[in-house]
Amino acid sequence: MSDRTGPPPASARRRRADAERNISAILDAALTCLASDADASVADIAQAAGVGRMTLYGHFSTRAELIDAVLARTVATADATLAAVDLDSLRPDEALAQLVSSSWRILQQYRALHAAAQRELDARRIRMHHDKALGRVRQLLDRGQRDGVFRTDLPAPWLVALFYSVLHTAADEISAGRLGAADAADVITKTLLGAFR
Amino acid sequence: MSDRTGPPPASARRRRADAERNISAILDAALTCLASDADASVADIAQAAGVGRMTLYGHFSTRAELIDAVLARTVATADATLAAVDLDSLRPDEALAQLVSSSWRILQQYRALHAAAQRELDARRIRMHHDKALGRVRQLLDRGQRDGVFRTDLPAPWLVALFYSVLHTAADEISAGRLGAADAADVITKTLLGAFR
Repeated sequence: MSDRTGPPPASARRRRADAERNISAILDAALTCLASDADASVADIAQAAGVGRMTLYGHFSTRAELIDAVLARTVATADATLAAVDLDSLRPDEALAQLVSSSWRILQQYRALHAAAQRELDARRIRMHHDKALGRVRQLLDRGQRDGVFRTDLPAPWLVALFYSVLHTAADEISAGRLGAADAADVITKTLLGAFR
Repeated sequence: MSDRTGPPPASARRRRADAERNISAILDAALTCLASDADASVADIAQAAGVGRMTLYGHFSTRAELIDAVLARTVATADATLAAVDLDSLRPDEALAQLVSSSWRILQQYRALHAAAQRELDARRIRMHHDKALGRVRQLLDRGQRDGVFRTDLPAPWLVALFYSVLHTAADEISAGRLGAADAADVITKTLLGAFR
């Protein structure tokens, strides 16, 4: 056997490029299919991606694994969007309202994925995917507690959990027909400001 | 064929009594097994109940169906406990604190079942099981809104959802090691009173 320190041969590079293209097509197709039907099957998704089922299973061995990957990619994209919101120039409570409305817009956009993830994945796993994005909330809460705008009799990690939970509860309540989608942003902001101040 | 209007023969009555006894033993065993291990298998539960696996599957065709039945029975028992709490003689905010602490004690007692249900059942299904018990919260919120103790700028069904969500978030946060079990009742009460008033 030769010592493989040089670049991979052209055939291996091509195979890897094919695999990357397929994975990307599968994740795009999964997001589209799940948006119209949270119960979309792996077969539906493979067809929409233009790949065979065996190719799909070669990359994602279960439907749960596929949804987990779609969720990871979506949260990373969402986190990049949230990074662009300038929170530092605002007062903590104004910044919170801003962060709620940006986060809520993203959650609404991916509501079908959220529903599919809830059915397929463990709640702890879904929360884990959001941990990085929630770092932003934590920073803002720390600032607000330091500035005396937010209450300090409750621990900051709990207030972060509350932010996450209230947004997801609103999504669930809309799905259950108990909350109007148009009212949600206002209801969430009032609730969180009430609980945080 | 004869017209069966008389009482069932003794053999049928005996079969039904056996079935009821088995179901009850299975539900008891499931609750005990899940309390020590949220991933307890159907085989473990059948063994603890002293019935064969086939007998268990005759009553509950999947593990999810079994956990669903355990949850239904547990919530009914919990609801009976909550019914014994005299809320009407207290001010709405005091009654809320009382209801939080009773509900939280019950949820803590059945934390392992809650974890098992979260892994096996849909979040909507779990919430549905709680709907009757949440009727108590709704009544209290209505009274508090009428008396001007609770805010009226947020709809009562939303405040009910928040009650449910904050309690379950606290259970999740304890499981994740982000909240101390001893602090939870106080944290929940402060959070809900902050959000409701």
